[in-house]
Amino acid sequence: MAAARTVFGSAGLNASMASVAREAGVGIATLFRHFPRKEDLVAAVFADRMKAYAQATAEALADPDPWHGFTGYIQHVCAMQAADRGFADILTMSFPGAPDIEEYRAQAYEGFLQLIGRAKDSGELREDFTSRDLVLLLMANAGVLSATAEAAPDAWRRLVAWMIQSFRAPARGPLPDPPEDAALYEAMRRAGQGVTSLETGKRR
Amino acid sequence: MAAARTVFGSAGLNASMASVAREAGVGIATLFRHFPRKEDLVAAVFADRMKAYAQATAEALADPDPWHGFTGYIQHVCAMQAADRGFADILTMSFPGAPDIEEYRAQAYEGFLQLIGRAKDSGELREDFTSRDLVLLLMANAGVLSATAEAAPDAWRRLVAWMIQSFRAPARGPLPDPPEDAALYEAMRRAGQGVTSLETGKRR
Repeated sequence: MAAARTVFGSAGLNASMASVAREAGVGIATLFRHFPRKEDLVAAVFADRMKAYAQATAEALADPDPWHGFTGYIQHVCAMQAADRGFADILTMSFPGAPDIEEYRAQAYEGFLQLIGRAKDSGELREDFTSRDLVLLLMANAGVLSATAEAAPDAWRRLVAWMIQSFRAPARGPLPDPPEDAALYEAMRRAGQGVTSLETGKRR
Repeated sequence: MAAARTVFGSAGLNASMASVAREAGVGIATLFRHFPRKEDLVAAVFADRMKAYAQATAEALADPDPWHGFTGYIQHVCAMQAADRGFADILTMSFPGAPDIEEYRAQAYEGFLQLIGRAKDSGELREDFTSRDLVLLLMANAGVLSATAEAAPDAWRRLVAWMIQSFRAPARGPLPDPPEDAALYEAMRRAGQGVTSLETGKRR
């Protein structure tokens, strides 16, 4: 588990089961005996962070200022992305084979919908903001992080600040429609499959 | 060349020389005889697009409306990213070993500085916008594109619209400092090295 945390944290979920086994100093067969599918290892390693991610919405909802709660939540999640490349991957990938991960994701989603509702009711969040805009921001942030993590590790903060200022009401103009929920989920599912399917060829 | 266009265009510059040779139906030795380093192949394949990229600033500067020229340029460049994954990589990577690519990039940079100056002079662009913010947007857009290109191919348009609306004056609040030029260049250089160094191990 510690080895997987190290490897996924620095290389992302694309890191192979073989590289985890190497870091742990065990054979690949031993690793697969404990975690028959890569999803199982990912779920075990990131369960605590997914739980924290789901709980972060509850903390943000406790903030008496709706806009501050909303923006603080976005900054918090993007900071979690910046702190761990494997977790950054999880946030923009879906793992239907890891129900624990998906259950926490669903909890975070429900909480985020409430944060959106409160911030719109207070008049501070643009009416055309949707939960899918956070997914787009997380994908965008992942792009900045993967390019700058070593050479300019704070660059992501500026991207997030630009986006949050744009989310603020009133609208400065119309926006193209966001992707449909189903299309965005499909993108996340494919990305998740991309990092797990090569590892478990025999079982699929 | 056509094979490389196809392979890089769909898989990005991470695609190996071996996969280009396979697509072309030639041996890897033949490919390396024509293009001794991967940078040489990348430079040959993308010369026309880099030229168009450099020229796009001249076209945008011909727009009598400074803000329209500035935002049209950003949308145009992001659309070029969306159209070709290899080109998307080039925009956020530096290739010191491919002077033609870097010369076009320098031209585009000079033109973009003029676009920024015009849009600030007209009072429509925030004073704290810097050329590095376009690099951040290109990195962010690459993240959205790599996640959504197949399942939600227009998702990037919404990210770009959020960002452009945020760039518009007046400022809605302070921003964290952008990364230093040198740090951002270092990030781009490392990324470029990442996609070329594995291919030319003998020569480095």
